[in-house]
Amino acid sequence: MQNHAEEINQVMSRSYAAFCDYRKISGNQKADFLDGIAAMLEQASAALVAVATTETNLPEARLSGERMRTCNQLRQFSAMLREGSWVDARIDTAQPERQPLPKPDVRKMNVALGPVVVFGASNFPFAYSTAGVDTAAALAAGCSVVLRGHPAHPKTSLAVAELISQAAHKSGIPKDTFIHVDGPGFEIGKLLVQHPQTKAVGFTGSYSGGKALYDYAQQRPEPIPVFSEMGSINPVYLLPESLKSLAAQTAEQYSVSITQSVGQFCTNPGLIIGVERESLRNFITLLSDKLKQIPPARMLHEGISKSFYHKRAQALKQKGVDLVAMSVSEEPENYGVPTLATVSADDFLNNPGLHDEVFGPYSLIVRAKDIKQMQAIAENLPGQLTSTAIGLDAELSEHQGLLEAIASRAGRIILNGVPTGVEVCPSMHHGGPFPATTDSRFSSVGIDAVKRFVRPLSFQNYPESLLPDELKTSNPLEIWRLFNNELRK
Amino acid sequence: MQNHAEEINQVMSRSYAAFCDYRKISGNQKADFLDGIAAMLEQASAALVAVATTETNLPEARLSGERMRTCNQLRQFSAMLREGSWVDARIDTAQPERQPLPKPDVRKMNVALGPVVVFGASNFPFAYSTAGVDTAAALAAGCSVVLRGHPAHPKTSLAVAELISQAAHKSGIPKDTFIHVDGPGFEIGKLLVQHPQTKAVGFTGSYSGGKALYDYAQQRPEPIPVFSEMGSINPVYLLPESLKSLAAQTAEQYSVSITQSVGQFCTNPGLIIGVERESLRNFITLLSDKLKQIPPARMLHEGISKSFYHKRAQALKQKGVDLVAMSVSEEPENYGVPTLATVSADDFLNNPGLHDEVFGPYSLIVRAKDIKQMQAIAENLPGQLTSTAIGLDAELSEHQGLLEAIASRAGRIILNGVPTGVEVCPSMHHGGPFPATTDSRFSSVGIDAVKRFVRPLSFQNYPESLLPDELKTSNPLEIWRLFNNELRK
Repeated sequence: MQNHAEEINQVMSRSYAAFCDYRKISGNQKADFLDGIAAMLEQASAALVAVATTETNLPEARLSGERMRTCNQLRQFSAMLREGSWVDARIDTAQPERQPLPKPDVRKMNVALGPVVVFGASNFPFAYSTAGVDTAAALAAGCSVVLRGHPAHPKTSLAVAELISQAAHKSGIPKDTFIHVDGPGFEIGKLLVQHPQTKAVGFTGSYSGGKALYDYAQQRPEPIPVFSEMGSINPVYLLPESLKSLAAQTAEQYSVSITQSVGQFCTNPGLIIGVERESLRNFITLLSDKLKQIPPARMLHEGISKSFYHKRAQALKQKGVDLVAMSVSEEPENYGVPTLATVSADDFLNNPGLHDEVFGPYSLIVRAKDIKQMQAIAENLPGQLTSTAIGLDAELSEHQGLLEAIASRAGRIILNGVPTGVEVCPSMHHGGPFPATTDSRFSSVGIDAVKRFVRPLSFQNYPESLLPDELKTSNPLEIWRLFNNELRK
Repeated sequence: MQNHAEEINQVMSRSYAAFCDYRKISGNQKADFLDGIAAMLEQASAALVAVATTETNLPEARLSGERMRTCNQLRQFSAMLREGSWVDARIDTAQPERQPLPKPDVRKMNVALGPVVVFGASNFPFAYSTAGVDTAAALAAGCSVVLRGHPAHPKTSLAVAELISQAAHKSGIPKDTFIHVDGPGFEIGKLLVQHPQTKAVGFTGSYSGGKALYDYAQQRPEPIPVFSEMGSINPVYLLPESLKSLAAQTAEQYSVSITQSVGQFCTNPGLIIGVERESLRNFITLLSDKLKQIPPARMLHEGISKSFYHKRAQALKQKGVDLVAMSVSEEPENYGVPTLATVSADDFLNNPGLHDEVFGPYSLIVRAKDIKQMQAIAENLPGQLTSTAIGLDAELSEHQGLLEAIASRAGRIILNGVPTGVEVCPSMHHGGPFPATTDSRFSSVGIDAVKRFVRPLSFQNYPESLLPDELKTSNPLEIWRLFNNELRK
């Protein structure tokens, strides 16, 4: 423990020293750095995917796609930096003659928070890990990053870290702007979060892990923001009219959404709520038949599969829960078998234990008596990353109360689609009310993720020569700014 | 205690019910409501100022000015609502033909968090209390507000609350959108912060009060954001060349800034750092002479004056601290006497007890050996609302390291001015790194204060008819939006 404390102390001191230089670097140079990382990842793609395949059991096609997405993310941030308006510049010029008091010149923009600690995620070895969105957002913000590699893919993490170091060297970025910390041990995470130089934390993973990091940060003498994205059960509300005509198509879509990547997505649809009628019974049969055709696949690591077996067994044991489909009766060790169960809405509402996530290829169908009871479920669920409604337009318009209840507890609402497949774009909010995340006001996908790692700073009565370029009256960077209450370039 | 718990439970249930209606109200109707409150405050101005004068001991002119500022704040938020772009709308339209996967239609905007609990501040009975910036920002966001009146000005608070209720009635706003809770008792605040329906908290006051509320919120099963603005010592760095020529003018400015409103401002300059030379000694003499001419004045309430006497006595007792000016030797009960002390930088750096705020008309001048030691002080201070540097342009350019150290620990940097007098405008950041506030990423002054009470919500695959107006392709509100990565109306 003592050794770890000293090691982390040195790591954070180096990170802080690098931050003091890195935060002064121009947007274009930061963009070159991020583009450089993306180029490195592309060049090394085959080798990276190969090592990730052996470490995660995920198929090559999925990992290749994820590697591409990671480069895409990095380039969205570099484009944001080159465009420059993300600093949210606001300028109010002086009015020395104003009565009763003169108005001072005040200008404001976002500046970097300081060293950020990022925890890699087990289920996204590229997109939410070493060079993933948290790292990209923090580096774009002007923060240094200390990355805690996920122990489930140590070689992948180290290989990516090495590429980041090479990209930093090429772009003239201080060496310790990115530091990789590996090795097992729970206490390293705690030491990193509680170190005085750490100014923010990014995490994607389980509720227990994310909440523990959050609590460590709040116990510090100086509390810091922790962005834990902890997943959710992503409820899907099936409206009856739609189900009459679209049951087969919906069953097909959801059999894929539930089992993609062995269900190891934080947006996996773990809960489906329908109105108990013939159309729902038909849908359950169709979905069961589809799921039974999907072979089990190996999960990310032993811890994940053990947790899946345990939580699923717990869920299946609850009052009124019936198993309706399991794709094979014998589960090979560490494999996730697609599983579907049902329960009545009465039993579901009375049992908060059924509101918890079962991470893996599992979904629970809740049979509600009517739309009113469906809405009662929406009103009783905790915060979610996503919620989905499947319905005809007329049906959705008619049930605005249900849509409002859904909206009040979700970060994203999908109509007539699936929650899996998170598009990386500015309008994507990947977050949601607690316990989906520890801070509903920020996204961990898209360029707005940069907002987690900045704070506004006002400059009052500065001469043009001392102002940062973003705030000079001459606007040399040609960015959008709120100038005397008017948005302009 | 049981009675209070039941009372607060009823209050929060009413607030939540009102929120469910209020959040759906249009921006224009919310703006009418805020304008209505401002108009009511104007009509009742004379009576309000009279009652506030008796309750706070603040002079009429100051309270009239503060009442005007409060109306100004309300109208800035109503203008923001009518303009509409504050929701930060982002739209990415579908690309069904995209390979390898179709791109969905995704749109995002800010939505209200839920019921907000606001604590009135003792030192601003209008601008940071009942109809103050926290209330205005939360109402603008679409949140309902439960206002805990400050026990130091109960009649003022109730009178303002009554006007808000009348304005709500006039504008057709649900009655319980604003609820006033009064009566003494520390536990009411805790019950409000820990109630499950409370979704955010705004507070302005002491460190001990603000941090306690923050900790209560973190102990909840569902943690919520707490925006405690807890003040700071607002260091002022005097560069030597400037002081040679501008000592008299600076002493004049600071004698006012230190003693305005009996020093009861969170931006009061409680620390002045200079380089020990003839020019600094001259400045100390000039400032002392000025301060000695300023008569003591009655402070806000007994608790504040007792705390001032106690903290000042503690500070004056520390090693190396010399009293250099006190405007009168006998202090009338509950009056704050302007007080100036000095200490060497060595003694200051070795004694963190001197880094704490003494709330009242008090300032400590630190004598540094050189600019390097001045910078060491900047690097050793905790987070501040403001920091100020007084220097010639050439001098300031030469000492970029000092300015960077200052910037890294402050929410606002002022050059050649005073920290008091917080201009209400979009570019004003009133906030700062902990312990100045509990969240450096948000401001408690200006229209950006609304950001504290909203979260983004994404809408995926919505038909135009079901989208909120802010996100319809037709843009009926004509607001600025990021549309397929391009900012436009």
